[in-house]
Amino acid sequence: VDLQTVRTVSDGSVRVVVDAMGGDHAPLEIVLGTLAWARAHPRDTVLLVGIPERISESAAGPIPPNVEIVAASQIVEMDESPALALKAKKDSSIMVAMDVLKQGRADALVTAGHSGAGMAAAVLKLGRLPGVDRPALAVQMVTETGPFVLLDIGANMDSSGNNLYQFAHMGSIYAERVLGVQKPRVALLSIGEERGKGDLAVQQATQMLDDDGGLNFVGNVEGRDLVKHMADVAVCDAMVGNVTMKFFEGFAGFMARLWEREFRRLPWGPIGYLFMKPGANRIRRTFDYERMGASPLLGVKGMVLITHGSAKRRMIEFAVEAGATAARAHIPELISDTFRGQPRRPGPQPE
Amino acid sequence: VDLQTVRTVSDGSVRVVVDAMGGDHAPLEIVLGTLAWARAHPRDTVLLVGIPERISESAAGPIPPNVEIVAASQIVEMDESPALALKAKKDSSIMVAMDVLKQGRADALVTAGHSGAGMAAAVLKLGRLPGVDRPALAVQMVTETGPFVLLDIGANMDSSGNNLYQFAHMGSIYAERVLGVQKPRVALLSIGEERGKGDLAVQQATQMLDDDGGLNFVGNVEGRDLVKHMADVAVCDAMVGNVTMKFFEGFAGFMARLWEREFRRLPWGPIGYLFMKPGANRIRRTFDYERMGASPLLGVKGMVLITHGSAKRRMIEFAVEAGATAARAHIPELISDTFRGQPRRPGPQPE
Repeated sequence: VDLQTVRTVSDGSVRVVVDAMGGDHAPLEIVLGTLAWARAHPRDTVLLVGIPERISESAAGPIPPNVEIVAASQIVEMDESPALALKAKKDSSIMVAMDVLKQGRADALVTAGHSGAGMAAAVLKLGRLPGVDRPALAVQMVTETGPFVLLDIGANMDSSGNNLYQFAHMGSIYAERVLGVQKPRVALLSIGEERGKGDLAVQQATQMLDDDGGLNFVGNVEGRDLVKHMADVAVCDAMVGNVTMKFFEGFAGFMARLWEREFRRLPWGPIGYLFMKPGANRIRRTFDYERMGASPLLGVKGMVLITHGSAKRRMIEFAVEAGATAARAHIPELISDTFRGQPRRPGPQPE
Repeated sequence: VDLQTVRTVSDGSVRVVVDAMGGDHAPLEIVLGTLAWARAHPRDTVLLVGIPERISESAAGPIPPNVEIVAASQIVEMDESPALALKAKKDSSIMVAMDVLKQGRADALVTAGHSGAGMAAAVLKLGRLPGVDRPALAVQMVTETGPFVLLDIGANMDSSGNNLYQFAHMGSIYAERVLGVQKPRVALLSIGEERGKGDLAVQQATQMLDDDGGLNFVGNVEGRDLVKHMADVAVCDAMVGNVTMKFFEGFAGFMARLWEREFRRLPWGPIGYLFMKPGANRIRRTFDYERMGASPLLGVKGMVLITHGSAKRRMIEFAVEAGATAARAHIPELISDTFRGQPRRPGPQPE
């Protein structure tokens, strides 16, 4: 497989290409976050793709020497249909950024643009890795004792058992290399621990993972097991993954507001709140989704990461950092190695 | 439709039949919780179904006059296959309790036994209401400004668009009558607000709900919208609903533990904790899932409610109360009325 897209320079430095025009606050916040990261990482390189004048305007000052601007004249807007937009806008920042990655001029790509367009552009421009039926979007989630990887959170709808089985392999590689977990515990997210529970796809995937000796498959887990850190990789259909991830985001904020309301009710009010503030900040930091940075799209020929459309400079800085970390871990190459040796499973393989 | 199963006595009192032998702590905790409820509600009646000697033993004292014991010699255990157990054990407490409901000797049924067996017994003994393709299990969840109803959380796997459409109608009736919400806002749970997002079933259901003027359909909501109380009824496939509900349960406990750890770190430690205790208790009460009582199974000919297998006496008391409330609301009759007038939708209708 020619993985021109992931080529890490021998000295350990990496090159991250950033879609400067994608996102609710593009290009200003994208440019400022990217430049902040570039200044903190002078040995690494960043390529900012977009309309050069608008990028320079946003920078509002000198551009560091390790930042290169790549011209792209068009923008895929947040409310456009991905399929139509990508067809009509060949010179859009996301398409040009994919070209930069494909040509081997960067080791990872980060975008805050329309996530559907980002995923579609990746599949269109880079293509899937051989043996991978569908890519998956993954996210890191928080538990009491450490993070775990949840996937798929939105790359596919109506995933089959075989798709889930492949997601398990890709998630395991990511958890091992990026989270640094030895032999990650892989689980399928289901409605009960028993074999035979769950929908058709989960039941098929359970069988395939039971038969596969190559993964540390710990069986099926329930929603309440996630925060108990009973798995390092939780595999599910995107409807389940996306709702769970976003519910988590909303719920963490809800709980924080509930506790703060109780502090304010205390007889010694603001004084008690002052005492409690470091603790409240620690908790807020635990659930600080901006630190998560960006979600890796696993299974395409190149390291693509997608971050929140609403990301501002701070989250963009974490997103570029996530891109650099993923680039250093050689994820697409490892997935390629695994799937090359992987016989396709018998049984129904829709798509 | 002959709804022999829901017949409320004219004076407003209700009769609840309880499966005394189902659950991890049966019969002891089931009997104690049920008797506590019966003592607090002398005008209502409870029927306890199970092995009479074991029920009497568990009662450990006089049985109130408004409690009747109904003999059943067998028990469906928590680890049995529902299909096999129900076939082999015709005189099991869950099957006999369903008979009591079907014969019109009770207005609602509550079980803490194997939830799969409870749902299967309901469909087998009572049958579905005419026009209802599949029943759905619903649960009440907490938000900052009030409760909402989430369904399906586990009655079906691989639900179709038509199934989701029917769940929306049943959930709306339940929210209106039990939560007391006028014109409940009904939403489909999806991965984005836009029409066209979500899996095939969600897209089909969106179209059907758009075409249907009979519901207050507010469109599709995301996971993070749930805690914002953007819907009174959130409709989804059971994989999504079950994982979301259980994740909520686990996450609420996780957050509570995080905050308590921070309290203990405070310089004035235990004293501060004493101050904070009323607030902590208020929050704990908000997320006290025992108060939820039991989950209604909507769409069968009778009011069946399923509670946690791990329920102890306190939760059983709330569960019997939930059964009494649902019985007073005439839910199955209202669903029957709605579905009787309801033309089946065109298009593919699997099952």
